[in-house]
Amino acid sequence: MITLTSDFGTPYPAAMKGVILSRCDARLVDISHEFPRQDVRTTAFWLSEILPEFPPAVHLVVVDPGVGTDRSALVVRAGDHVLVGPDNGTLFPPARALADGDQKCHADMDAYEIDIKEPRSATFHGRDVFAPAAAEIHAIGTDRLAALDMLSPAEDIVEIEFPTPEIEHDSVRGEVLVTDGFGNVITNIPGEILDGYDEITVNGRPKPVEDSYAAVEPGMAIVTVGSHGNVELAVNQGRGDDAFGLDIGDPVRIEL
Amino acid sequence: MITLTSDFGTPYPAAMKGVILSRCDARLVDISHEFPRQDVRTTAFWLSEILPEFPPAVHLVVVDPGVGTDRSALVVRAGDHVLVGPDNGTLFPPARALADGDQKCHADMDAYEIDIKEPRSATFHGRDVFAPAAAEIHAIGTDRLAALDMLSPAEDIVEIEFPTPEIEHDSVRGEVLVTDGFGNVITNIPGEILDGYDEITVNGRPKPVEDSYAAVEPGMAIVTVGSHGNVELAVNQGRGDDAFGLDIGDPVRIEL
Amino acid sequence: MITLTSDFGTPYPAAMKGVILSRCDARLVDISHEFPRQDVRTTAFWLSEILPEFPPAVHLVVVDPGVGTDRSALVVRAGDHVLVGPDNGTLFPPARALADGDQKCHADMDAYEIDIKEPRSATFHGRDVFAPAAAEIHAIGTDRLAALDMLSPAEDIVEIEFPTPEIEHDSVRGEVLVTDGFGNVITNIPGEILDGYDEITVNGRPKPVEDSYAAVEPGMAIVTVGSHGNVELAVNQGRGDDAFGLDIGDPVRIEL
Repeated sequence: MITLTSDFGTPYPAAMKGVILSRCDARLVDISHEFPRQDVRTTAFWLSEILPEFPPAVHLVVVDPGVGTDRSALVVRAGDHVLVGPDNGTLFPPARALADGDQKCHADMDAYEIDIKEPRSATFHGRDVFAPAAAEIHAIGTDRLAALDMLSPAEDIVEIEFPTPEIEHDSVRGEVLVTDGFGNVITNIPGEILDGYDEITVNGRPKPVEDSYAAVEPGMAIVTVGSHGNVELAVNQGRGDDAFGLDIGDPVRIEL
Repeated sequence: MITLTSDFGTPYPAAMKGVILSRCDARLVDISHEFPRQDVRTTAFWLSEILPEFPPAVHLVVVDPGVGTDRSALVVRAGDHVLVGPDNGTLFPPARALADGDQKCHADMDAYEIDIKEPRSATFHGRDVFAPAAAEIHAIGTDRLAALDMLSPAEDIVEIEFPTPEIEHDSVRGEVLVTDGFGNVITNIPGEILDGYDEITVNGRPKPVEDSYAAVEPGMAIVTVGSHGNVELAVNQGRGDDAFGLDIGDPVRIEL
Repeated sequence: MITLTSDFGTPYPAAMKGVILSRCDARLVDISHEFPRQDVRTTAFWLSEILPEFPPAVHLVVVDPGVGTDRSALVVRAGDHVLVGPDNGTLFPPARALADGDQKCHADMDAYEIDIKEPRSATFHGRDVFAPAAAEIHAIGTDRLAALDMLSPAEDIVEIEFPTPEIEHDSVRGEVLVTDGFGNVITNIPGEILDGYDEITVNGRPKPVEDSYAAVEPGMAIVTVGSHGNVELAVNQGRGDDAFGLDIGDPVRIEL
């Protein structure tokens, strides 16, 4: 199985699929090709949430603002999974999530560089470098590829970290990690801080703490624990980002 | 085969796919994840049109404004098909279409409730309740699941009906069921009423009756019978919704 | 394998998939269903780029402004590939790209008309004519279908050509073929004309020639050779179409 992730929109992902299917008959599953363009952090957040739901697979991830520059092309083994993509940090959070989630091989990660030999283009390495690499890895595995001198151990790779909230006795300073298509605002604040509270204050405004969106009337704002386990700001059948006036990176101060 | 339908946009459907593929190796086919958010009726209309084209399958349908409340989680068997989703009416019209369409077992439908045991989240039952249920049904079928006490017969389920047009001798009062991405306006009026007419009046304006969009010049409005068999208001290479000034639920009066 | 291409958006492509999967168990791969509505030329451009990446397949292509009129329904064999769709020119450029790309059978193309017998609708031949035809071709091939009198040789088919640039000693007059989702402007000017130049003039404004988007600061405009081999006008992490003020069909004059 090969999953595909990019910020390409359409129709470029189909070119990657053609390249892969010309080389192996892997099952292909799209994660998304609508991630915000060149937004490495948002893509890394969602992949950290979603890829651990999958059985062992090769994950092709191409959000690549540095295409054609001397940034490396990476293969990261994480437990029974393999991630393939540019070395810009996108792969690191999901790789850690995949390694942590694999009970048999905790924190079991290796990184390799792909030895790129004259790609067809300097502007579409998704098609010309990463899709062929994903197909080869699916077909013969990372060990054989390393033995064939197509991969070499990576010295150091770009790592990105999500910001850590400052948790005090009766307040938390966090920030917005991402918003989703429903307008739900996903913060970096762990959901457990809501335990036992019926109401908290978000950026100065008191809001009810609820288990589900529909616990309040349509149009009413709530604070809840999202499916990712973090504090989420939402509106029943409406948009939390509009109601709270928040976007990616904005500060979120909670008073308990 | 498992089909997937939701109002999730992206990337949440991928989490459901990961959950399913971790449990079975069903072929997955997306119906759409772009249905209007929380719009049970529009989703039900399109599923009634589209699902009967499919061979026997498990259909995972998650448009779920009541997620996390005490609304039931349903499994509906309809002929050789099974539908899985929240009990809010979405499943009923397509289930009836599937049961009616199956010549061998006319109107053959059963409904079960899924016995939900502590889902991981209260906000993403698509991932935590319905996707696992669809995978189990695909793997072992509804009969075995009922025997394992994972399903119990549903007492009564939410049913929705599409509005019925009022058909008189020389006029019809109907309404707009949905509009499609081309802007075509799909009504609840049966297409047969157009038989034998070259022109009719729609909401007071005379319009030609045509077999195809391109029967008139680009930009001209027509009345036709859509692929669903109902009266459709359209513009050749343009948008019928704009030309007729109509949206979902608006009244449509036709004079013959 | 059957690939699917249309301008349908959602959810109509799912109806075609149901029809196909009711008739054969081909692997289905979406190219795109978001091509600009009724835009035969843009669709033909992208298919010419993308389909040659695929292994031998049946390609279902339905951009069909003339649905329901007397335009023919075509099957075009190109090398080991088969294209199926309306006779409006969309199939011709990708068929030629597929035939040229197949070393074993250079320029090996045949065209057939599908003998349409009372389709279910006059407005959705994607579902009622082309999807069934693609499934039959996948199942038994064009030779058997022709023998069964379901296909007859096409007399002449609609051909479209992309405009040819006028290349002089120190200047080129071309035009914009398409823009992509990133806003990159793809011209009909062959990339080789940039060889050896560090800077050229585009529509009167001097611009640097670069190998990659990220060779300049974010927000800066460049001229490069795109993944298609043509001259492309782009902005690093921005939109070339906005920066250059160009859209499909606009003239592009380059001075070297």
